[in-house]
Amino acid sequence: MDNAAVLVSFLPLPFSALALTQDFCVADLACPDTPAGYPCKKGVGADDFYYHGLAAAGNTNNLIKAFVGQFPGVNGLGISAARLDIAVGGLVRLHTHPAASELLFVTEGTILAGFISSSSNTVYTKTLYKGDIMVFPQGLLHYQYNGGSSPAVALVAFSGPNPGLQITDYALFANNLPSAVVETVTFLDDAQVKKLKSVLGGTG
Amino acid sequence: MDNAAVLVSFLPLPFSALALTQDFCVADLACPDTPAGYPCKKGVGADDFYYHGLAAAGNTNNLIKAFVGQFPGVNGLGISAARLDIAVGGLVRLHTHPAASELLFVTEGTILAGFISSSSNTVYTKTLYKGDIMVFPQGLLHYQYNGGSSPAVALVAFSGPNPGLQITDYALFANNLPSAVVETVTFLDDAQVKKLKSVLGGTG
Amino acid sequence: MDNAAVLVSFLPLPFSALALTQDFCVADLACPDTPAGYPCKKGVGADDFYYHGLAAAGNTNNLIKAFVGQFPGVNGLGISAARLDIAVGGLVRLHTHPAASELLFVTEGTILAGFISSSSNTVYTKTLYKGDIMVFPQGLLHYQYNGGSSPAVALVAFSGPNPGLQITDYALFANNLPSAVVETVTFLDDAQVKKLKSVLGGTG
Amino acid sequence: MDNAAVLVSFLPLPFSALALTQDFCVADLACPDTPAGYPCKKGVGADDFYYHGLAAAGNTNNLIKAFVGQFPGVNGLGISAARLDIAVGGLVRLHTHPAASELLFVTEGTILAGFISSSSNTVYTKTLYKGDIMVFPQGLLHYQYNGGSSPAVALVAFSGPNPGLQITDYALFANNLPSAVVETVTFLDDAQVKKLKSVLGGTG
Amino acid sequence: MDNAAVLVSFLPLPFSALALTQDFCVADLACPDTPAGYPCKKGVGADDFYYHGLAAAGNTNNLIKAFVGQFPGVNGLGISAARLDIAVGGLVRLHTHPAASELLFVTEGTILAGFISSSSNTVYTKTLYKGDIMVFPQGLLHYQYNGGSSPAVALVAFSGPNPGLQITDYALFANNLPSAVVETVTFLDDAQVKKLKSVLGGTG
Amino acid sequence: MDNAAVLVSFLPLPFSALALTQDFCVADLACPDTPAGYPCKKGVGADDFYYHGLAAAGNTNNLIKAFVGQFPGVNGLGISAARLDIAVGGLVRLHTHPAASELLFVTEGTILAGFISSSSNTVYTKTLYKGDIMVFPQGLLHYQYNGGSSPAVALVAFSGPNPGLQITDYALFANNLPSAVVETVTFLDDAQVKKLKSVLGGTG
Repeated sequence: MDNAAVLVSFLPLPFSALALTQDFCVADLACPDTPAGYPCKKGVGADDFYYHGLAAAGNTNNLIKAFVGQFPGVNGLGISAARLDIAVGGLVRLHTHPAASELLFVTEGTILAGFISSSSNTVYTKTLYKGDIMVFPQGLLHYQYNGGSSPAVALVAFSGPNPGLQITDYALFANNLPSAVVETVTFLDDAQVKKLKSVLGGTG
Repeated sequence: MDNAAVLVSFLPLPFSALALTQDFCVADLACPDTPAGYPCKKGVGADDFYYHGLAAAGNTNNLIKAFVGQFPGVNGLGISAARLDIAVGGLVRLHTHPAASELLFVTEGTILAGFISSSSNTVYTKTLYKGDIMVFPQGLLHYQYNGGSSPAVALVAFSGPNPGLQITDYALFANNLPSAVVETVTFLDDAQVKKLKSVLGGTG
Repeated sequence: MDNAAVLVSFLPLPFSALALTQDFCVADLACPDTPAGYPCKKGVGADDFYYHGLAAAGNTNNLIKAFVGQFPGVNGLGISAARLDIAVGGLVRLHTHPAASELLFVTEGTILAGFISSSSNTVYTKTLYKGDIMVFPQGLLHYQYNGGSSPAVALVAFSGPNPGLQITDYALFANNLPSAVVETVTFLDDAQVKKLKSVLGGTG
Repeated sequence: MDNAAVLVSFLPLPFSALALTQDFCVADLACPDTPAGYPCKKGVGADDFYYHGLAAAGNTNNLIKAFVGQFPGVNGLGISAARLDIAVGGLVRLHTHPAASELLFVTEGTILAGFISSSSNTVYTKTLYKGDIMVFPQGLLHYQYNGGSSPAVALVAFSGPNPGLQITDYALFANNLPSAVVETVTFLDDAQVKKLKSVLGGTG
Repeated sequence: MDNAAVLVSFLPLPFSALALTQDFCVADLACPDTPAGYPCKKGVGADDFYYHGLAAAGNTNNLIKAFVGQFPGVNGLGISAARLDIAVGGLVRLHTHPAASELLFVTEGTILAGFISSSSNTVYTKTLYKGDIMVFPQGLLHYQYNGGSSPAVALVAFSGPNPGLQITDYALFANNLPSAVVETVTFLDDAQVKKLKSVLGGTG
Repeated sequence: MDNAAVLVSFLPLPFSALALTQDFCVADLACPDTPAGYPCKKGVGADDFYYHGLAAAGNTNNLIKAFVGQFPGVNGLGISAARLDIAVGGLVRLHTHPAASELLFVTEGTILAGFISSSSNTVYTKTLYKGDIMVFPQGLLHYQYNGGSSPAVALVAFSGPNPGLQITDYALFANNLPSAVVETVTFLDDAQVKKLKSVLGGTG
């Protein structure tokens, strides 16, 4: 076959007609969100798919997010990321991600991690070393803490662009939920609730 | 047009060829589950779409489930149910459903209900009377208690056939998660943790 | 471990950075809908997750809806609700919900309900008493009528925020679809079609 | 760069390790179905992705299906097909597909098609000629009939592998649903119901 | 039962209250897209669900699209279409649809089609004659060419409203990706890359 | 409120009744796959959610996978992982993942990465240093190569448990697709095709 002849007859593809195809949908954070994510930004470039914010540790024990709010390129793509830096003796307290499963890669140090199943309150724990990965199913309580003698670092991926983060202590003690209600719904003692509300800035 | 003539020429539809159509997929609980639900049971009848188990209150303060495990007809249909009976002074403690949103209909009495958003620990609470409904978004901590002077009853629907139920107290205190770990990940005091582990049957 | 020390070093969480997390997306009905639901309203409060409109019966045999159009809090949450009041001898005529499965809880009286499978025109019917539930798979024809001697009430949940409601009689007889077309596509007699068009206000 | 050197060092890719990747999942119809489709057949070849059954018209006015039950290659792929042959004066009666939207391509003749929206019983109708396409949204009542003077043929695609097919007349008149119930839920007259039950083989 | 009496008491249905129901969501292409499709257009009519653009062949070997950008009625419905006209000796070069599976109906001529599985580079090929259909799983490389002695025509359906179209040759040779990079990532020879870049209008 | 009294009356929760709840679904690879993933394994422990296989580099330039086939714990969770080790001058050739988006974290060295959009053949490229992340939208051609003077390592996450991997060169040259077909569908020269088939072990 004479490829060149066919090639020529085949051209040109009407590229302009392709302009509405949606290969991706970088978030336009200035628009209101929808249940499926943000409307698509116009005028996208390579920098929209790139994020530098996880390259360095923060100045506290903290989780640095690359969710859709920080990294608009993940909008609609079913994935997002975070970085975890945990000092010796530090931790990410018990928490859930209401809207995503989590995959954790340990890149430095030793992390003790666990999650609790809802079906029988069974606890699944592992000691993770550099290079290990662990998956935490969507919506279940889990924690990570530095069980070693040097700082620990982990990279985290989530199965959605906006996984959410509900830290149990903050949900209970860092808002205006009245102490009496907290006590009723948790059976914690009054003194315990008031102590933690005081430390975490809760009122009521 | 002579409908009768067309009608006759149109018949018969090959009904047997339709037999593989999947209008529904009642769970065959004897088979292993899959990420999308159970394999479909053969030989389905009207009773498979009906459930009587929520008609009467249980003999304790309790949640009676009509999840796929109890009511196989909801398999694959994106919905399930439960019944909540709460005595005066009783409650459904703080909990999450990792895999579904919840819609609560109050059918008797008065229920104080609330949920906590992950985005800023904001608390959303309402006092619900007979006939009121409230929705609890997927995966967020919430609670319901009887705030009135007579028993309360609610019917509950979930946006999935297997919503899960993770009660925070049970996740923390009703298993073998060591007290030291619970204390580390929650900042609760040692005495508090041991007291609740003792009451709820936890060890470690 | 000295929890207090870690606690302090761990604070403060940058709450403001969390503000874009999407735990929920209450519908802003003033914006155009999308295939996944309405854009999210700003400035949400507890009342957005609460609905009182199902507390009382309507003044006719009717279905009272708490779909996303009436109850914007269910937007994006995969669930909605309705209330059904059926007088003695009344009914909800044959209909489908094109976009959701239905779960019906009988709260008063006796309801005869049924649905018809597409795979072999098999009919699944049950007589439901107070406390019983029945599930109707998505898109299939079904009906409910009061088969008892006192008014019947049911609460209904749907597996989506906007289930749709297509009543067969209204689809056929309450619009401008010409009688000749109705007769052709249903094989109903001309007199029958014209009679029902007349009662239901159809033209053509 | 010396491509050849890199190429060699890059080889061999462990192809056997790739064997579990799921590019497709041809249905094994001998296994029980699941809510997401059939388990995957082993030993797949090109013929599994090919279907010849729509090449010729059937011997009646009929719909020839290429749903997952006939064409197992579409399992899990979100699509299926059918062929419609309509004699002069023939039709596909009013029906719904509970689980898919439909796209119709007219390949011969003239087809009058319409669907009815649930939101206001609005009717959307078009006369379609060879080469025209029309889309019918999921779950809505629609019909197609031959409005011309020669046979009509259409190819149909569905947005799912198992769209279902519920023909209103068959659902009402071709089963054992008692005439009294049909009359109650549709307000059709007794004589009309009995006439069509007789023609379509229904009982009761 | 006195149907007429019930019928009357049952009326009127509050049609206006139904106006927010979303049976469909025709794309408003003037609004920004979202990950789930375009916002819904107001003021929809029958013409929005109809497309004439596939009725005639284009004036080149080409694919005529009826994706959401051309046919806004498919927005949110999980389906779209295209028409393929292939002259003798012509072809649709190797390409993928990143976001949909494809179903091809041959309506004229003979088409040689194939796709390549990612799991073991296995090739699945068929010679397709008038009336045959073939399915191409999502995201896999495939091609179609006219293997006969007369023009070939096919109608194509996709399992999504915006399937995308990535033609391997155009991705490699019709843009500004530097030749050195193309050579590195494909191991093609420099002369080959430059020759095709020249034919297809690429630079760099 | 006397918490202890309520606590006691509230107990015991029927834990055994919870046993069917599906918080997760670790793959039983011995069962046939389904379109939604593998059936769930029984007898799951913490090791099922943990994977050590990415801790060390392989002995070639290679991608080490932690897809569901290697790491059954990710089944049904919408996420999976891989590790990329690229020697100086090495690369991951042009490829797609037909069923997932990719998120790449650079943990050592410098990686030049790019992807090509289907909508206008636009190329998006970045030079990534340690700590940088980049996202590659589902199904689009992309590549990564070591652009530095030391080995590069990246951790990769995917938005699905079984993303697939289709390397364009292997798809074209490492199987039995006849050279004449490859030439027809790509316009590559005969000598080029035969050279690469020879290097990559293809036949035909």
